[in-house]
Amino acid sequence: MNKFNLKKYIKDRKEKVDSALETYLPKTQGPAGKVVEAIYYSICAGGKRVRPILLMAACDAVGGDHNKVLPAACALECVHTYSLIHDDLPAMDDDDLRRGKPTCHKVYGEAIAILAGDGLLTYAFELMTHPDLLENCAPSTVIKAINVFSKAAGVDGMVGGQTADILFEGKDVDPDTLAYIHSHKTGALIRASVEMGALLGGGSQEQIERLIEYGMALGLAFQVIDDLLDVVGDQDKIGKPVGSDIKKQKATYPALFGIEETRKRANELKDMALNAISAFGFEAEPLRAIACYVVERDR
Amino acid sequence: MNKFNLKKYIKDRKEKVDSALETYLPKTQGPAGKVVEAIYYSICAGGKRVRPILLMAACDAVGGDHNKVLPAACALECVHTYSLIHDDLPAMDDDDLRRGKPTCHKVYGEAIAILAGDGLLTYAFELMTHPDLLENCAPSTVIKAINVFSKAAGVDGMVGGQTADILFEGKDVDPDTLAYIHSHKTGALIRASVEMGALLGGGSQEQIERLIEYGMALGLAFQVIDDLLDVVGDQDKIGKPVGSDIKKQKATYPALFGIEETRKRANELKDMALNAISAFGFEAEPLRAIACYVVERDR
Repeated sequence: MNKFNLKKYIKDRKEKVDSALETYLPKTQGPAGKVVEAIYYSICAGGKRVRPILLMAACDAVGGDHNKVLPAACALECVHTYSLIHDDLPAMDDDDLRRGKPTCHKVYGEAIAILAGDGLLTYAFELMTHPDLLENCAPSTVIKAINVFSKAAGVDGMVGGQTADILFEGKDVDPDTLAYIHSHKTGALIRASVEMGALLGGGSQEQIERLIEYGMALGLAFQVIDDLLDVVGDQDKIGKPVGSDIKKQKATYPALFGIEETRKRANELKDMALNAISAFGFEAEPLRAIACYVVERDR
Repeated sequence: MNKFNLKKYIKDRKEKVDSALETYLPKTQGPAGKVVEAIYYSICAGGKRVRPILLMAACDAVGGDHNKVLPAACALECVHTYSLIHDDLPAMDDDDLRRGKPTCHKVYGEAIAILAGDGLLTYAFELMTHPDLLENCAPSTVIKAINVFSKAAGVDGMVGGQTADILFEGKDVDPDTLAYIHSHKTGALIRASVEMGALLGGGSQEQIERLIEYGMALGLAFQVIDDLLDVVGDQDKIGKPVGSDIKKQKATYPALFGIEETRKRANELKDMALNAISAFGFEAEPLRAIACYVVERDR
């Protein structure tokens, strides 16, 4: 049997997500066309589509068909993109560049950027009720997925993490607060991507619980490595200046524990993720390869 | 039979909404507690609870029980409040006062205000999947209501209207664009409140269609009168300086058509709303009284 080819897998899936986004994003014209233009600008700015790909992989891992959950995959990318647009605003992280391109408010102005974020967040929930999703998933399952999604994105998830991140900028952060920021700001939505995929794919309670565990470990590993790349990464690859977290006095894992300890922690989290899904068969191979890639990536 | 007492009805319903908000709003503490504090500040700033009351009244009008749809009523107030917080931001309408109190960003800063808005919008969809709502409404009905809700709040609804409002500030606006701004910025969510109530209350297709018509007319009337009060209103009653739309060169109905024509238009819209529900019985009396009140109000 051939070794699983992650590079090809990611490329295929990313193309599938990009084409689904073309299908499912709003086509609004007229007086509000500008905000939809800003939405396309940010969605098409070269994202890795990590969350949609995770949702699709988790769906397949429980025996579902990722082609049947594409609106939900796109909804995740909408929420992720809205969070980037709002995080980049002058009143928040005040970033001019994102993935090597001018940020949304730099191109469209602050008002349109705020509205583009609001529009994307709202649209995510419209996509979760899209007829194409309901054709393949029971309404009660979709409701559960929306519940998981909204909790992960809201004040007890991503918004909460971003709040803490902003409030603790320039302040001494203890390990507990750092863990809160990591698990909420990035971890919650990554965990939800996996959980939503497992739910919509029709997974058993046991499978869903294993995948939640996988998603939690993966989400933390993802943020820990993001922090690390801000210290040791290559600006051309990560698409923003190296050291920007340090300059903003952001709480990061390397700042608190050093580079070696950070690498060790990331590897532990990878092992936790792999262990959580050890009972799954070959259909979970993409999730295993993704866990390894997240920890070894350089961008 | 006694005449329907709208004043008492509104007071009772408002108390019910306020108490439901206390029950259903997030209780988050810890690092993200600040954003929840900002959410409470804005939600408790003296809103009239128009949208929740409309949802409950439409639910009752089709023979449902408004006590069984309280999470959805609260969800509407969350989305309405988020829209006010974001509209007031310096990059948007730049308002310091809202209902006579300092706006959210004046008290908590811009970053927390943006996050409070994002948190409220997200939380609205969490509330739409609350167990208390699902206990009383079929999942497929709740999905339909979420679909209506997200469309009304998003780029083809409220966000679209606000985008046009911002883009046309200080510019000559033709009647078509003004109609677009009105029907999207305020009208869409008011219409959705009524439609969601009719759906969740178990209304027939015919009842729902009548109520959508009622909601569209009411939403327009509401905005036309809002514009009028900005010209002829009493600052103490409306909670913001009279003439602030004119100062910001906002497109308004009185600016385009004059005060008399505006009053005439509001009365026509009231009649359209009343006609739409003429076949309903006494259980629609609150909706009738609300339509009259909206056009006759002075605040």
